[in-house]
Amino acid sequence: MQQARKGSAMRGAIGVDLGGSHVMAAVVDEVGEIHGTFEQDIEDHTPASVVEILATVVRSAIESSKHEIAGIGIGSPGNIDPGTGTIRYSPNFGWENVPLGQRVRELFPKYTVFLGNDARCATLGEYVHGVGQGTKDFVLLTLGTGIGGGIVSNGILALGHQMGAGEIGHHQIRPDSGFVCGCGKVGCFEAQASGTGLIRHAMRLAPSFPRSVLLDVPREKLGSKAIRKAAQTGDQHALAAWTAYCDDLAIGLANVIAFVNPEVIALGGGVSSAGDFMLDRIKPLVELRTTMVPRGTTRIVRATLGNDAGAVGAATAAMRGGLLARLPPTAVA
Amino acid sequence: MQQARKGSAMRGAIGVDLGGSHVMAAVVDEVGEIHGTFEQDIEDHTPASVVEILATVVRSAIESSKHEIAGIGIGSPGNIDPGTGTIRYSPNFGWENVPLGQRVRELFPKYTVFLGNDARCATLGEYVHGVGQGTKDFVLLTLGTGIGGGIVSNGILALGHQMGAGEIGHHQIRPDSGFVCGCGKVGCFEAQASGTGLIRHAMRLAPSFPRSVLLDVPREKLGSKAIRKAAQTGDQHALAAWTAYCDDLAIGLANVIAFVNPEVIALGGGVSSAGDFMLDRIKPLVELRTTMVPRGTTRIVRATLGNDAGAVGAATAAMRGGLLARLPPTAVA
Repeated sequence: MQQARKGSAMRGAIGVDLGGSHVMAAVVDEVGEIHGTFEQDIEDHTPASVVEILATVVRSAIESSKHEIAGIGIGSPGNIDPGTGTIRYSPNFGWENVPLGQRVRELFPKYTVFLGNDARCATLGEYVHGVGQGTKDFVLLTLGTGIGGGIVSNGILALGHQMGAGEIGHHQIRPDSGFVCGCGKVGCFEAQASGTGLIRHAMRLAPSFPRSVLLDVPREKLGSKAIRKAAQTGDQHALAAWTAYCDDLAIGLANVIAFVNPEVIALGGGVSSAGDFMLDRIKPLVELRTTMVPRGTTRIVRATLGNDAGAVGAATAAMRGGLLARLPPTAVA
Repeated sequence: MQQARKGSAMRGAIGVDLGGSHVMAAVVDEVGEIHGTFEQDIEDHTPASVVEILATVVRSAIESSKHEIAGIGIGSPGNIDPGTGTIRYSPNFGWENVPLGQRVRELFPKYTVFLGNDARCATLGEYVHGVGQGTKDFVLLTLGTGIGGGIVSNGILALGHQMGAGEIGHHQIRPDSGFVCGCGKVGCFEAQASGTGLIRHAMRLAPSFPRSVLLDVPREKLGSKAIRKAAQTGDQHALAAWTAYCDDLAIGLANVIAFVNPEVIALGGGVSSAGDFMLDRIKPLVELRTTMVPRGTTRIVRATLGNDAGAVGAATAAMRGGLLARLPPTAVA
């Protein structure tokens, strides 16, 4: 924990979370505390429109801040060219080759701009200021519509050769399952074990459970939360889906242990709000599939920063530097 | 590349490769060159007998060496307790809780002893002195009886919380395949895509190919090499097995890209001696399954150090320090 220097404003940075439906900019200080957030919905996903919204919320955050702003960190969906800060592709936005980093740099020439994948930013946030603190090997997985992930190895956020390390959601665990992933492959961890995966398991099993309470739920409302709640109240169909889901989640988590052998795996995202109902089932399943290190030496816990993790991590990258694609201020470049 | 200091012997270290059937000790210099190897077969796999053989070959290597020996590095199969240097379990040897590190330290009190998993040592060897040179993110996979692996992330060998990082062979890619892995799980990458995996694919497909040339090969001689050779000469059965094998290998390699996004994946071990017959088939299959980074940005190549990689890497760890479980000399401890 660092202290503000005497006689000067405490250091901080702007952390931006570029979500599918809204943009949020937060003023984050050196200990990961948020001092105000500025949020605006995205109506139009064209790059120009999104950049305009981003600029508005970032400007508001900078103006509101009493901190000495070290830079602007942005967490964006998609794969980023580490050399240029161009978003190569972002399926969520339907973007291809959008020079987001350059545009933000032009708009804020006084500031250093850091750009990283949103899930990697969240991993950095949880590692530095959340449940990963004190570990050297750490993995975050957010179980939402998809599965976002990130890896810290030897105390350093893994980015890989082309900013693609930690794309754990897109490793295949059941290439014959028939569950087609958003990325085009079949049986990715994300296709099997995201919130969407839970819905797919329930729909696949539906024909066997003609008296399921889930049949009363309109199909467009059949979300992972409804299934989880029905499982918790003992509905056989929902329980069968939950069981199939947890098996696939356990395969992926054990695969994480085989690759990374982290001290802690943190689970975030909507499905993780099942809390102990999930963890109590998952832990023994993962231990069964842990074969090369002593069982139980990787702790599986819930993430603690929730939706703030991405903005906190992006701001942390801007403050500490060097962990994501770094775009120098225009004045210097 | 470092130069020998003037007026003093060039620095070197002893690198030990503890194989299933023999122990090899090599004198390795700072640029990874081997200056003499000493080898002895293992007849009896009891810890006492293996330690005795190890001590004999290490002593011979030290006596023969004209180098200033910086330490002894040992690459051993199995999982190692990072705190004590005890081999927790090694399925190859049938060992459990063998204090190998301590025993070697007692026998060679003048030297610092480094102990690491054999596949991780080989990864370090290829990274520092072989085909991984110049990269920051690198993976080695040896396709032999099993699949040994190792990961270098951000220029640092990944060890994980309990020396289990890089156990890539034991991530599950086909949990329903029925191919039981040596570790007890079904459908591990190793069960599907090691040399043994190739034999299994051939045996599973045998009933469909009553005129296969492989049927003339006595079952105990049906090795991966025979299958590969038959595939290269166009036997339909062998080709079908090779195709199924390469599909599974491609799944695992694409999973490596999803987790690690390395610049280079090096393939070693017996199956990799298929060379271009393998690489030409594998590369497009891996590209098809690479969805989150630009295709083709991970180079897939053959490893270059061959069977020396483990000893070179173990010696490198002893010379550079800090990459594996480090056991101080008894005099100091």
